[in-house]
Amino acid sequence: MEIRRNPFTGERVLVSPHRLSRPWQPEGFCPFCPGGPETGQGWEVLLLPNRYPVVTRSPPTPTREELFQAEEAYGQAYVLVETPRHDLDDLSDLPPSQIEKVLRLVMKAQKEAEEDPKALYFLFFRNKGREIGVSLTHPHSQIYILPVVPPRVETELRASEEWYRERGTCLHCLITTREEKRIVYQNASWKSFVPYYAKWPHEVHIYPKRHVSHLTALREDEVGHLADMLRKTLCAFKTALGKPMPYIMVLHQAPLRVETPHYHLHFEIYGMYRPDAKLKYAAGAELGASLYTLDTMPEETAERLRKALANCV
Amino acid sequence: MEIRRNPFTGERVLVSPHRLSRPWQPEGFCPFCPGGPETGQGWEVLLLPNRYPVVTRSPPTPTREELFQAEEAYGQAYVLVETPRHDLDDLSDLPPSQIEKVLRLVMKAQKEAEEDPKALYFLFFRNKGREIGVSLTHPHSQIYILPVVPPRVETELRASEEWYRERGTCLHCLITTREEKRIVYQNASWKSFVPYYAKWPHEVHIYPKRHVSHLTALREDEVGHLADMLRKTLCAFKTALGKPMPYIMVLHQAPLRVETPHYHLHFEIYGMYRPDAKLKYAAGAELGASLYTLDTMPEETAERLRKALANCV
Repeated sequence: MEIRRNPFTGERVLVSPHRLSRPWQPEGFCPFCPGGPETGQGWEVLLLPNRYPVVTRSPPTPTREELFQAEEAYGQAYVLVETPRHDLDDLSDLPPSQIEKVLRLVMKAQKEAEEDPKALYFLFFRNKGREIGVSLTHPHSQIYILPVVPPRVETELRASEEWYRERGTCLHCLITTREEKRIVYQNASWKSFVPYYAKWPHEVHIYPKRHVSHLTALREDEVGHLADMLRKTLCAFKTALGKPMPYIMVLHQAPLRVETPHYHLHFEIYGMYRPDAKLKYAAGAELGASLYTLDTMPEETAERLRKALANCV
Repeated sequence: MEIRRNPFTGERVLVSPHRLSRPWQPEGFCPFCPGGPETGQGWEVLLLPNRYPVVTRSPPTPTREELFQAEEAYGQAYVLVETPRHDLDDLSDLPPSQIEKVLRLVMKAQKEAEEDPKALYFLFFRNKGREIGVSLTHPHSQIYILPVVPPRVETELRASEEWYRERGTCLHCLITTREEKRIVYQNASWKSFVPYYAKWPHEVHIYPKRHVSHLTALREDEVGHLADMLRKTLCAFKTALGKPMPYIMVLHQAPLRVETPHYHLHFEIYGMYRPDAKLKYAAGAELGASLYTLDTMPEETAERLRKALANCV
């Protein structure tokens, strides 16, 4: 168990062979339902240590070769069970007050991680849909507390820092004011849009209107508004094509304890159905060359999601 | 139809909404079989213009917004039909002489692309398996001739150039001599190995032993040896787990007409089955953060593939 790095691309690999033995789709038993050996009773939202973690508090010594040096897989991996109810399909099926509880639990975990000097990054993400490999359907999201900054965020940080150095403005802030054409929804504190440079068929980015670098820096009211934003946006994903869309949602924020004038926290949601409700696959061009083929115009995607969202209450 | 760019990550998006109307899995008709309206008769390998291209010789004017500027989707997209035989499963089912014909046709197309000053990159790749979204099973690979360097290659170029500037050596050359532990196969001119930093469950990189930047710079004998290398390596992919493995194969080479002392052409093959023959999905960590979770040790993967390859003749 260790973290390796591609010296050409900077990509990190969380090598964890013990995970191969994890159950794929346990029959008739949900490890996230109340009353299980790990879950117990009497909770509304629950943070569970991942039983098959990619990082751990006591990692083994990493390998070292003449040319390569792995890093310790230090950290923590959690599953966040978002509701005791197994029968719900998605986060957007929860009432806003329950989504707020989920967000407050994420913030609490992040506050704790901020106290650990070996923890450099707090990654919160959510995978939805069997079509993209999700084996446990009980509504849940995931948290990785990591000793490295995720390469994708690192790349964004570098570019936004460069922009800031050259022009003195935050490129994220600028983009949120320029995406009027592709906006999906906004409320008092948040804005969501299909970015001009969307690479997945239904891609939406969610930004706070205020420049905020970390989830833990959100104000009380901004958390409430975020719950509303997530619920409406994900409801649009569920209803836009007549069948629930598989998606990936990931929170991009600054590294722990690092305040930046140039990096703005945001959620990225990748809806993996094309407009004809067929799954988009990433293959040679995408995974081999980082060239994404998009069979749809982002402007039309925004319109489709706006229409769907209008029916979400 | 145009090429957009993510200003934070540099990723390129080939926006081509007309592709949505392409047939998913045409019933009872194969557009690549001999005797069709596009294919005709009397060929052993065939280069077909892609009917639903992502780039074209006469691209429309790209969009321009205050903050964003797309690029012309100039170029050519081809399908390379590798055999008239529809019933074959994979490239490794062809005799070496036929694989050599495929390679010579790729080289011919690349030589032509070298003459076009607007063409900056020649991307050759192969997607195999319905599990990863391949709809047409008649053996074929693909070529994109592009006005941009694929971002993944650009990133590799930058890192290898930096290494060269600081140390005066080619990092690719160095790695090929250090991967002895994870080697899969070698012949007179080529070496294949599972890299230390593999991120897919069965990932193999194939390098020429000589420092070569472009496919078109290969010597006669090196082309023959490459046919042998591809056949053996892909045969190992087919047989290692008892059922054919879906994979992506992509050729990384230097940009057209650019000679580099630091960038070494290589094939990357990503076998998408985990050791238990279940599909590996990329989700939140992978696609949202460029953090790859690997449920297997690259050293064991190399051993598994070596064993399978020993039975390939």
